[in-house]
Amino acid sequence: MSKKKNNQLSALESLGNEVVKQINKGKNPEIPVPIRALSNVEFDEKTKTVKLGNKIAARYFFNVAHAKKFLQTLEVASISKNLLKEEKHASLRDVFYMAKRTIPGTKVNIVDEQTESDSVLEDLELVTDLSREQLHVNANKNGSVAGKVVIEDKGDTIDWSKLGSGGWSIPSNVENIKFKKVAGKYILYMEKAAVWERLHEDKFWDKQNCIIMSSQGQATRGIRRLLQRLTKEYNIPVYVLTDLDSWGHYIYSVIRFGSINLASLSEKMAIPDVKHLGIHTADIGKYKLEKHLIKFKDTDLSRLKQIREYPWFKDNKEWQKEFIALKNLGAKAEIQALSSRGISFISDTYLPEKIKNKDFLY
Amino acid sequence: MSKKKNNQLSALESLGNEVVKQINKGKNPEIPVPIRALSNVEFDEKTKTVKLGNKIAARYFFNVAHAKKFLQTLEVASISKNLLKEEKHASLRDVFYMAKRTIPGTKVNIVDEQTESDSVLEDLELVTDLSREQLHVNANKNGSVAGKVVIEDKGDTIDWSKLGSGGWSIPSNVENIKFKKVAGKYILYMEKAAVWERLHEDKFWDKQNCIIMSSQGQATRGIRRLLQRLTKEYNIPVYVLTDLDSWGHYIYSVIRFGSINLASLSEKMAIPDVKHLGIHTADIGKYKLEKHLIKFKDTDLSRLKQIREYPWFKDNKEWQKEFIALKNLGAKAEIQALSSRGISFISDTYLPEKIKNKDFLY
Repeated sequence: MSKKKNNQLSALESLGNEVVKQINKGKNPEIPVPIRALSNVEFDEKTKTVKLGNKIAARYFFNVAHAKKFLQTLEVASISKNLLKEEKHASLRDVFYMAKRTIPGTKVNIVDEQTESDSVLEDLELVTDLSREQLHVNANKNGSVAGKVVIEDKGDTIDWSKLGSGGWSIPSNVENIKFKKVAGKYILYMEKAAVWERLHEDKFWDKQNCIIMSSQGQATRGIRRLLQRLTKEYNIPVYVLTDLDSWGHYIYSVIRFGSINLASLSEKMAIPDVKHLGIHTADIGKYKLEKHLIKFKDTDLSRLKQIREYPWFKDNKEWQKEFIALKNLGAKAEIQALSSRGISFISDTYLPEKIKNKDFLY
Repeated sequence: MSKKKNNQLSALESLGNEVVKQINKGKNPEIPVPIRALSNVEFDEKTKTVKLGNKIAARYFFNVAHAKKFLQTLEVASISKNLLKEEKHASLRDVFYMAKRTIPGTKVNIVDEQTESDSVLEDLELVTDLSREQLHVNANKNGSVAGKVVIEDKGDTIDWSKLGSGGWSIPSNVENIKFKKVAGKYILYMEKAAVWERLHEDKFWDKQNCIIMSSQGQATRGIRRLLQRLTKEYNIPVYVLTDLDSWGHYIYSVIRFGSINLASLSEKMAIPDVKHLGIHTADIGKYKLEKHLIKFKDTDLSRLKQIREYPWFKDNKEWQKEFIALKNLGAKAEIQALSSRGISFISDTYLPEKIKNKDFLY
């Protein structure tokens, strides 16, 4: 077992040892768990990411309100320890089923709903300072990548520029990938697989010397870590292409600042210098997309209002200007609206122009 | 341009020429469109697939109820012709935006909603006898594959056994893939990407000499065609692994018999000899999954009732027995319930046993 794995194991074992020590001393066993709630989330001006505050709550075994969660925390820690020992990875759903068993001598299940095991796993990430991936629990897998990059993964050498029309399927866990050769002036992440196929067919990454990556909607944790590793280790800028709407803006927000749910992980996941390439309100007139706007519904407006108020957007003048312009527009626009200008307008004109002119929101 | 492409182009051109001929003769231009509705869908006992009947409706230009659809049909045919000529592919959303323009001299759009362009595209498939893929319009891309298969795609040679933890990302269009080497006793398609990652980590395809493939939920058209090509061209059986519920059964139903919406395409897409491997009601007791059942809600029961009544299931004794057993069980079960027996129970015990004993539903 590698040294890295050993450190992960010992973080889990010291959690268990601490509990045993307390029991031997005749104390009420407790686990200190940082509070995961908006009340304990702050925006770190220095790192420019969403961060968890210092508030901690103790979880006691002898406390009717805590006992079950205490047990669940140790159960999930034990499942994770076994996964590490067996060198295997499980999904969140797997962990739920592994934890879902009756407490001996009772008719009570350790967990009844997946939300319970998910929640204690998030606690465990904080308690051990290990990410879910390091605890060998994987998130969903989705997305493809292409570009002039060669990696080594599980003993295979994989050239992202030689994978036909499909590209490499991005796994849920990219921690152990080794980069052998990385070329590319930038990485373009887009929220739609269909747009990725368009750019791939146009050999966009080859012509523009870049890397193209996509999932469907929110970037998976695997993708966020892959983006972060490439930008940190090779200093390649990341540009994000989304629809012009609040969901698109939130996809960007999560990649850049981290998410509220996983504020503790911002350091491992956020990419503070990622740029938003489009679609911007200013693109509508510039690229003649007026006829392809989709009028706002109530939900669009309320989501826009929420996002404007996020601490990390609140003092950002550029973004506030964009949010107001979007509100005044009263409509959203999709990336594919560009197809109205011609099937390869996006590859031949829109993207090269935007990138050349550094027409980003940041 | 290849001969195949030329045939596709001439199918579209003869549609246009026919309309021009009618105009020149002073006739009311018409396009004969097969009716796409349950009333014109039948189960073909010979090919064992869902099939479109012979009912045809003429679509007239000089008919207030038809005029717009007539125009839309020709517009989408023209978009497809341009895609073929440019040798490019578009998504359904792209086609919508390309068709969404004002009719000159009016304020009326050719299409206002994507459902309109989608619908005439489905008509066009019937009129021209070309699939959406042959018309160069791609469906969504999703899914991964691994196994001892080497393909050639877009000039790249891709070995599905040497792609690390990610696998090959399956494109939306697999018509032009060339198989260079195909080994494997069977193909296992599963409805969950997380299960695929489990089997891949366990090197299941290597140990069992098979091919593993997955998307998320319903198999995409790209996957269905890939499964069909492999089974037809290399005579490899396909096994499907789904949750034990009506949605899982419908995933199997679509792969085996074709879908109601695309009944005309069954010949190109259906795989009449595909087997359903699990999860079966009989597995619940056999593999001790009783504690992991999820109680039926009303929607589960009503969907089960619908599926039982499908003509292609109605006279199938094995499946009817399973549907009744599921109704009596009054609960569903997920593939991941097997994880309660151990993280690799599925790879080490469940799948090998089921396959060895030919414990399939068919």
